[in-house]
Amino acid sequence: MQNVTLRVEGMSCNHCVNAIEKALKELGASGKVDLAAKTVEVSYDENALTLEAIKEAIEDQGYDVV
Amino acid sequence: MQNVTLRVEGMSCNHCVNAIEKALKELGASGKVDLAAKTVEVSYDENALTLEAIKEAIEDQGYDVV
Repeated sequence: MQNVTLRVEGMSCNHCVNAIEKALKELGASGKVDLAAKTVEVSYDENALTLEAIKEAIEDQGYDVV
Repeated sequence: MQNVTLRVEGMSCNHCVNAIEKALKELGASGKVDLAAKTVEVSYDENALTLEAIKEAIEDQGYDVV
């Protein structure tokens, strides 16, 4: 398992938290959003997923991974 | 038809817009959110719905009608 903390801009409310956590779950990763810190802590299997795919999933929800 | 513009606090993103517009639609009203102005313009049939019910539907989504 790989853990990474991403800095993500544009997350403003609990709907945003849900949208990102759901998108990560659908990828097979898990994520924990900290709205105040503007971060997403992601756990994923690095044999199954790339960090690039994770960033893309977050950006596809309309957020910027910094 | 009755039209009213409510001032609503806590709406921060398009997910919030969707949540409120969907809740109003489910009530049988229609709403248009202006995020920047922090307002919701609601159209409703005053014979079928009260303004109180509309405010409650918005508050049930987690927002404050001022």
